[in-house]
Amino acid sequence: MGVVVPLEDKSQGPGKAAPGKESQAIDGLVGLVAADMARVNSTILSRSISDVSMIPEVANHLISSGGKRLRPMLTLATAGLCGFGGEGHIKLAASVEFMHTATLLHDDVVDESDMRRGKLAARMLWGNEASVLVGDFLLGQAFKMMVEVGSLPCLEVLSSAAAIIAEGEVMQLSAAKDTQTTADDYLAVIRAKTAALFAAACEVGPIMAERSKADIAACRSYGANLGIAFQLIDDALDYGGSAAKLGKNVGDDFREGKITLPVVLSFRRGDDAERAFWKRTLEDNDIREGDLETALSTMRKHQALEDTIERARHYGAMARDALQIFPDSKWRQALFDVVEFCVSRAH
Amino acid sequence: MGVVVPLEDKSQGPGKAAPGKESQAIDGLVGLVAADMARVNSTILSRSISDVSMIPEVANHLISSGGKRLRPMLTLATAGLCGFGGEGHIKLAASVEFMHTATLLHDDVVDESDMRRGKLAARMLWGNEASVLVGDFLLGQAFKMMVEVGSLPCLEVLSSAAAIIAEGEVMQLSAAKDTQTTADDYLAVIRAKTAALFAAACEVGPIMAERSKADIAACRSYGANLGIAFQLIDDALDYGGSAAKLGKNVGDDFREGKITLPVVLSFRRGDDAERAFWKRTLEDNDIREGDLETALSTMRKHQALEDTIERARHYGAMARDALQIFPDSKWRQALFDVVEFCVSRAH
Repeated sequence: MGVVVPLEDKSQGPGKAAPGKESQAIDGLVGLVAADMARVNSTILSRSISDVSMIPEVANHLISSGGKRLRPMLTLATAGLCGFGGEGHIKLAASVEFMHTATLLHDDVVDESDMRRGKLAARMLWGNEASVLVGDFLLGQAFKMMVEVGSLPCLEVLSSAAAIIAEGEVMQLSAAKDTQTTADDYLAVIRAKTAALFAAACEVGPIMAERSKADIAACRSYGANLGIAFQLIDDALDYGGSAAKLGKNVGDDFREGKITLPVVLSFRRGDDAERAFWKRTLEDNDIREGDLETALSTMRKHQALEDTIERARHYGAMARDALQIFPDSKWRQALFDVVEFCVSRAH
Repeated sequence: MGVVVPLEDKSQGPGKAAPGKESQAIDGLVGLVAADMARVNSTILSRSISDVSMIPEVANHLISSGGKRLRPMLTLATAGLCGFGGEGHIKLAASVEFMHTATLLHDDVVDESDMRRGKLAARMLWGNEASVLVGDFLLGQAFKMMVEVGSLPCLEVLSSAAAIIAEGEVMQLSAAKDTQTTADDYLAVIRAKTAALFAAACEVGPIMAERSKADIAACRSYGANLGIAFQLIDDALDYGGSAAKLGKNVGDDFREGKITLPVVLSFRRGDDAERAFWKRTLEDNDIREGDLETALSTMRKHQALEDTIERARHYGAMARDALQIFPDSKWRQALFDVVEFCVSRAH
């Protein structure tokens, strides 16, 4: 594609980010939850088994495709932060990952995506039908596992999240192809479709540990703000980063007519000719040779990607602040580092 | 279409079924649950509200399309049968209907159906995306309501049903277009995709009423067998009945290549030429002018529809027998009559 977008964090000066910095930032978390994650992973595998062989085939295609499993790690880490000594966090973490996987399967159908995590999307191999139904199966299994844990407050948090995520996806569908979308509209969508699950993933740990309302709210706030930061960076990466790194191609959102923050900022800061360009490409879906390059150069002109990343930093800072009421610990430090990991993915 | 299939119950002699008999058979149930159903209906309406206007639009398109709401009525009636005096059955009944509605929305996408209950399928008006996501939203709302009721045993029953329903749908997908499907394979599919929700709908009433294991098992067995009978009749009606009555067209299953019991029986009882016909039309999807008429006359030749209805009567009898351990009451009588209603739909 030959498009290079400068995404350096100006506060560090260009080029300062050491190679491999990302993996270092999340290494602390990975190490702390390693033993629990092994149990979560075997739960995920055993719970995607079915006599109907298409189910584990489709589920494992996505499950084994090297996702980071960030959301279940957050459940384990917030349980650790709150000193939870029981068992329930394992199944809850696996439930959170199943809810996420179900969403991805349904998203691929909704977005008509060809690729997911660098592999062919399940719907390309087994059809839309299988993606819809295996997603439903995983959602059912997620609820079964939560029920087995038996905590009604956790069930309330996770079932509410399920409804809100779907609401956010429909909101995105309604806003799709509308270049008049405001940054607020956009934030409402990502709060629902992405941040709600991050928030729920971080809230069930302190609930299981029977912590105070303030501690539970702090973990929830950490998760919600981290989720917003994560999605903002994802949306910036769709116009930067390399396909290999992302597992998807630069410009997927552009080709699908998705209105994300980089577009919202470019549209609002642009002149009439630029607005006509965004309307033609994203609303009318009339995309011609060279349009992606024009989109990228227009975003550069308006610093749309840099500012999207700056906003991600803002939410990242809020996530960190939420956890400041907890005393310093290896858990808290690991959760701070996750914020850096999410934001620094843009480098 | 001009195709008339004789579906009379031979035990009554042709033409004996009085007009309006169907509605009489279910009138007892409708009357008994009327007050509770009014509360269920207002719960259904209030819980499909969302700030995202597309959600109530899509949901109400299907919800207001005149489905019988048989499943939530069963929840109310089995609660009544077991003398439940609390409140929880209302939300559980609404949850059951939402689970059913979500399944219908997803089924339409999977089957690529144009019509549902005599109206354009939601996916034809709002697209596949909306059907997938609004289905997910309703499923999320269903779980939220169940959690609000707060009975872990009921949550276990309903979340298990959700996973099994999806499993059944995938099973059907895997079996689709395979004319070698046995009657047992077919029964396994409908046990999962249809009977599991009927069973769960009937099981939560006695659970809420804290009845004995035997009473709970009896209600579950009633629901499961009624569900099988219901689906068998549905599959027979797809090759008989009138489009106006069904809200779908005769031969939909044929055109979609669905292997239902009438096909299984005709294939197994047929000669080589007939098997070649079923393979060409259902496996190879090569359907030509006059093929539906050939399918119908072949089914007539092998009494495939009559025998499908006979099998439905068998499961209907099992459903009735399951409830015989309960003393006679207006509730039990109404539940007996529902069996007759389901089976006599084929007239």
